[in-house]
Amino acid sequence: MKKLMNNADDFVKEMIEGVYLANKDKYEYVPEINTLYRKDIPANKVAIMQGSGSGHEPAHIMSVGKGMLDAACPGAVFAAPPMNYVYECTKKIATEAGVLHLINNYQGDKMAWDMGREMAEMEGIKIGTVIVNDDVSVEDSLYTVGRRGVAGNFFVIKACGAAAEKGASLEELVALGEKVVSRVRSMGMALTGCTPPAKGTPIFELADDEIEMGIGIHGEPGRRRVKYRPVKEIVKEMFDAVANDIPFKKGDRVAVMINGMGGTPISELYIAYREAALLCEEAGFTIAKNYVGNYCTSLEMAGFSLTILQLDDEIEELLNEPAEIAIRVF
Amino acid sequence: MKKLMNNADDFVKEMIEGVYLANKDKYEYVPEINTLYRKDIPANKVAIMQGSGSGHEPAHIMSVGKGMLDAACPGAVFAAPPMNYVYECTKKIATEAGVLHLINNYQGDKMAWDMGREMAEMEGIKIGTVIVNDDVSVEDSLYTVGRRGVAGNFFVIKACGAAAEKGASLEELVALGEKVVSRVRSMGMALTGCTPPAKGTPIFELADDEIEMGIGIHGEPGRRRVKYRPVKEIVKEMFDAVANDIPFKKGDRVAVMINGMGGTPISELYIAYREAALLCEEAGFTIAKNYVGNYCTSLEMAGFSLTILQLDDEIEELLNEPAEIAIRVF
Repeated sequence: MKKLMNNADDFVKEMIEGVYLANKDKYEYVPEINTLYRKDIPANKVAIMQGSGSGHEPAHIMSVGKGMLDAACPGAVFAAPPMNYVYECTKKIATEAGVLHLINNYQGDKMAWDMGREMAEMEGIKIGTVIVNDDVSVEDSLYTVGRRGVAGNFFVIKACGAAAEKGASLEELVALGEKVVSRVRSMGMALTGCTPPAKGTPIFELADDEIEMGIGIHGEPGRRRVKYRPVKEIVKEMFDAVANDIPFKKGDRVAVMINGMGGTPISELYIAYREAALLCEEAGFTIAKNYVGNYCTSLEMAGFSLTILQLDDEIEELLNEPAEIAIRVF
Repeated sequence: MKKLMNNADDFVKEMIEGVYLANKDKYEYVPEINTLYRKDIPANKVAIMQGSGSGHEPAHIMSVGKGMLDAACPGAVFAAPPMNYVYECTKKIATEAGVLHLINNYQGDKMAWDMGREMAEMEGIKIGTVIVNDDVSVEDSLYTVGRRGVAGNFFVIKACGAAAEKGASLEELVALGEKVVSRVRSMGMALTGCTPPAKGTPIFELADDEIEMGIGIHGEPGRRRVKYRPVKEIVKEMFDAVANDIPFKKGDRVAVMINGMGGTPISELYIAYREAALLCEEAGFTIAKNYVGNYCTSLEMAGFSLTILQLDDEIEELLNEPAEIAIRVF
C-alpha cells in the first residue's frame, strides 16, 4: 500500500485538517467529532448535515458550503459516524427552523443517525430525515436492506441545499428530498479495487482482464464480474439498468452524472460521458445539466458510476442556483 | 491495461468529443485539428491558445473558457500537436489584437509551435509567445533543454486569461506571462507509473515500496527513486526544492497548488496540502490562494506535484477574477 499519508490512524483527521486549512475563512472545525461546519449558517434557515464513512470524498466532508451541506461529520474510512458525532454535530448547527439529516441507506449509518436524532430531539431540536437509495445495481446488499445510496446523493444535497437557502421549511425539504430520491438512479462499475488505509490490503481484487459491474462504493459485490470490454458496452449496460428503472421516458429532461470512483482520470470520464450522451440522444432524453468528475468516490478505486436524474421545473431551477463546496477549480 | 475507452486510436478523439458534448453551448469543435475554441471570443481581445500532448487533462483541452484559454489543440497522448494544428487553430481564433501562444517547455512542442507561428505570421497574424518552465526537479531533461513546464502553467493561463479579458495588449500579456513564469516553481512525485493507451504497458514501474521524487509528467526520470515514506517527508523535500529556488522569502504572499497526477484521490491531496500549509506557516509565507485538485495530470498516474507562486498585487487580483473551464463541480 502506497498512499500520501503519515499513518493510517491519522488519515481521516489529517484530511479534514487539510480541508479546514484550505478554507479557514468559511468553516469551523471540531476535531473531536470529525466535523466541519459553515461559519455563516443563517439563523432562520434549516441546517443540513450528512456524514457517512470517509473515503468517498468530496462526499461528504468536502461538500460543506453555501447552498449545499451546512455540516458534515464523517466516520472513519468506510465506517458510519458514531452516534455522538451525529448528536453533537446536530446541536452545533441547529437553528429554530430545524435540522435536515441526509442519510445514505446503509444499516450502520441508519443506526447511528436514528440514535443521534433521538438524542437531539430530546433536547427539543426539530429534525427531518431523508434516506438516499439511488443504486439500481442490487436490491438488499452486503451492508443494506434495500438499495444502496451512492452518487445520486449529490443531487439531493444540491436541491435541498438550494431550497433551504431560499427559505424552505423542514417539512418542505423532506418532501423535496424524497422527490429527488424518487427520480434519481445510479449504477457503478470498477476496473480495480481499493485499499482502506487501516486494512493495508485491497478490499477485493480484479484480474487484469476483469471488471465488476454494479460495484458498491465500499467494494460490496455488484451484479457480475465480466471480461474487460469497450466502454461503449459498459455504459450501455449501465444506461439500460438505470433508464429502465423508474422508468425514464422519451422527452424527459434529465441531469446526467459520470462520477469517477477516485482513481479514474478525467479523460476517461469524458470518454464515458460521450457514450452516455449518445445513448440519451437515442432514447430521446434531453440533457439539461451534466456533471463529469469525482462526486462520490471509493478511495483510489478506478471505475465510475452513471447517475440520471429526471428533472422537473423545481429541481432544475434548484440545480441552477449558486452553490459552493471545498472542491473548486479557481 | 484496463481503461474506459473503446480503442487506443480513438482515445483522444472521443475524449474531446465528450468535452464538446458536455459544453456544446460554449465551444466550437474542429475534429480535424483536435481543437475546441470558445464561441464568444471578443473581437478586440487577444486570443490565447495552448496545446501540448494529451493525457494531462484538464490541461489543456479542458481549460478552454472565458478568462482562460480561448482554444486548445492538443496532440496525441504525450505527443506535441502537429504544426498544422497550431497553424489552423491560430487562424481560427485570431483577432486584430493578436494571438498569444502559451507553450510548455518541451522540444517537440517548441518545434511545432515555432513552425506553426511562422506559418500564421506569414498571413499577417500578430503572435506572442510565452514559454512555461516551472519544474525545479531537473535542469535539461529527457525531452527538454532547460526545465520542464508542468502545473505552474495553470497560473500563467489564469493570469493572462484574466488580463486579456480586461483588455491587455499582446505585448502586455507576454510581459505578464513571463512575470508569472519567473515567480512560479513546481516539483512532482509519483507513487505509480501510467500506461499510454497506444503503448498498452506502463511507461515506467515502481516497486511496491518505491516512489520517484521529481518525476516528469510523461514519466521522465526525476531526481531519485527512494523508499516509500510518510507524506510529511515527501512534502518537505519538495517544499524545500521549490521554496529555495527563486528563493521565496519570509513575508511573501503565495498561491499554493497541490496538483493530483490523475489517479490520486482528493483525500490524499488534502493530506498533502495540510503538510504544505504547515510548512508555509513555518517559513512565514502567507497563503493567499490555494488550489487542491487535478490541474496537470499524467493519465492515471498516482502522485502529486507542489507548485508555489509568489504573488504581487497584479497577479493576485488576476487570480481572483472570474473564469471558467470545462471542469466544474456544479
